[in-house]
Amino acid sequence: MTDLKTIAGNYIAAWNEAAPSAREALLSRAFTADIRYRDPIMQGEGHDGIAALIDGVQQQFSDFRFSLRGEPDGFGDAIRFSWSFGPADGASVFEGTDIGVIENGRLKSVTGFLDKAPAQ
Amino acid sequence: MTDLKTIAGNYIAAWNEAAPSAREALLSRAFTADIRYRDPIMQGEGHDGIAALIDGVQQQFSDFRFSLRGEPDGFGDAIRFSWSFGPADGASVFEGTDIGVIENGRLKSVTGFLDKAPAQ
Repeated sequence: MTDLKTIAGNYIAAWNEAAPSAREALLSRAFTADIRYRDPIMQGEGHDGIAALIDGVQQQFSDFRFSLRGEPDGFGDAIRFSWSFGPADGASVFEGTDIGVIENGRLKSVTGFLDKAPAQ
Repeated sequence: MTDLKTIAGNYIAAWNEAAPSAREALLSRAFTADIRYRDPIMQGEGHDGIAALIDGVQQQFSDFRFSLRGEPDGFGDAIRFSWSFGPADGASVFEGTDIGVIENGRLKSVTGFLDKAPAQ
């Protein structure tokens, strides 16, 4: 059984990977083929749908990186983990917490909430 | 549309109500008939299933009360809210965050995570 920290780490790695072929491998490791992702700003389905979301975020924030914040927790097929997003050498600009459903060590669905965002 | 704070408030009210008839009305306000609830410790389905969980918690912690912690947030049919549980006039003993799916102003599913618990 894949542990919660590995599952969350696979997720973060996929969001940080800009090279399409490397990212496709990471997406396959992190997500089931029928992954459904949604947060307050965007949603997507399948590896291609998630790749499009990642492309959009990377284009908008090209010098930002995701990192895991705190310790993932969970029970049954549920996982919760928190992340930071900001300049690689600076303080976080965005923070969030994602709730996922796990199937065979991969995320089958993700619902993301924002914990911190710049004032608009 | 029922706002997120009302939905979370209905949930807290049901968990705090000990009288069966009053609680049945609160359960109907807070949850769909097919509500599915789960957290790291317990799970239940339907109003009767939730009532049994509430009875168990109230018997174990008879002088404790739930209260809402912070502001509920959400998007689409998703809601997130946090709660405290402890003596009515004292500091919290347990804290948690629940993620729910909303249907017509009521919770259709709830997945609960613990944020604070006494060391065992």
